[in-house]
Amino acid sequence: MLVIEYDGTNYSGWQIQKNKKSIQGELTKAIKKITGENTVIIGASRTDARVHATSQVANFKTSTKIPINKIAHAINANLPDDITVKKAIEVPLEFNAMKNVSSKTYCYSILNSEFPSALRRNYYYLIRTPLNINAMRRAAKVLIGRHDFGGFVTEASTKRNTIRTIFALNIKKRGDEIKIYVKGDGFLYKMVRCIVGTLVWVGKGKIKSGDVKYILRKKDRRLAGPNLPAKGLCLIDVKYERY
Amino acid sequence: MLVIEYDGTNYSGWQIQKNKKSIQGELTKAIKKITGENTVIIGASRTDARVHATSQVANFKTSTKIPINKIAHAINANLPDDITVKKAIEVPLEFNAMKNVSSKTYCYSILNSEFPSALRRNYYYLIRTPLNINAMRRAAKVLIGRHDFGGFVTEASTKRNTIRTIFALNIKKRGDEIKIYVKGDGFLYKMVRCIVGTLVWVGKGKIKSGDVKYILRKKDRRLAGPNLPAKGLCLIDVKYERY
Repeated sequence: MLVIEYDGTNYSGWQIQKNKKSIQGELTKAIKKITGENTVIIGASRTDARVHATSQVANFKTSTKIPINKIAHAINANLPDDITVKKAIEVPLEFNAMKNVSSKTYCYSILNSEFPSALRRNYYYLIRTPLNINAMRRAAKVLIGRHDFGGFVTEASTKRNTIRTIFALNIKKRGDEIKIYVKGDGFLYKMVRCIVGTLVWVGKGKIKSGDVKYILRKKDRRLAGPNLPAKGLCLIDVKYERY
Repeated sequence: MLVIEYDGTNYSGWQIQKNKKSIQGELTKAIKKITGENTVIIGASRTDARVHATSQVANFKTSTKIPINKIAHAINANLPDDITVKKAIEVPLEFNAMKNVSSKTYCYSILNSEFPSALRRNYYYLIRTPLNINAMRRAAKVLIGRHDFGGFVTEASTKRNTIRTIFALNIKKRGDEIKIYVKGDGFLYKMVRCIVGTLVWVGKGKIKSGDVKYILRKKDRRLAGPNLPAKGLCLIDVKYERY
């Protein structure tokens, strides 16, 4: 099992795609270099293009002789510097980084300022309008729990079952930064970015916090807010009940 | 007067140089575009290649008709997104962003961890050895005050007078991050990076905190630690007594 950090700015996402740079692709190449093996790397989350991670989790099977405490360093030595392995541990053969997930946490970062920020340009989404954080927090409360999130999923999703549980949804403001933390048992295609887009609509006064209940009930994607840009999104935690 | 933030990663520094990308050069081009004027932009600090700034200060003279509250936005519209103007105010004609400085503060960021960080790779210098922060703090105290910093200046400096005053030198540790804040009335060529390099030597136990007094007295650059890499350095504040 690997814990991986990456700057998604220059990647077309986690998943290997033909003729495109992907995190999974770079990891596969690095592992091939050190082990000589063609491995299948399973990631906890298929993050989209330009989405970041401080703690993506992945697993692969290997019969390499490299000791486990050297694996992370050996992979890092063969990765570009915008992908880094922070941890490598041995897990039971049946471990599956995607299927065994008990919770994932994403953080969406907003710069709420009149001016853009050079240093935060790739990691924060700029919103110039002042946002009403209290209204956003009221709306967030409505989304916590087990719900059908059919109204918050983008069409390209192939998932038929749109019921998910959100364990926590916290909004923190410090200076000109707003961070929205969403912890759930799983997320539908672009669901976090749609939730955050809807909360921002509430923060701008475009809709009321009470309207979020109606959007949940109607399950109509046209009622919810926009999917905010990928660059503000970061996968910050993945948990497993066992392992 | 402008307050400017920049990500120095892709620049050869503040100062205009032939055939090289510079912050001053990009600003000069942007101002020319909006005013039609060839201006001379004076910066508070000539930051080196790859050094960052959250609050560089600069000034230029113009007879543009653009109102002052539109200047920052107009310049930003003509700048690459790794340079942003955060503030523009009118100051008396005699204001000089370099000569009138009363203090400058730099922050040097260290990632003290076994593993590199993809997301912090351009802004933190990685040191894998655990550092003794208390010893570093004792050494830092020695440097505070008015001293001859001849032992902390790199030869390329043209400054004959090597006496400077350090008002504050604070070291903060949070998780795997160490930030060293240096506030002074002015700094010699690569002086901050040499001070930090010397403190890191103390933190590694290579020299003792008491040795810093000896290096100050001897004024011999060969005794002090290395100039740490530019990417960890960021100009975070410039103060003026008036204006």
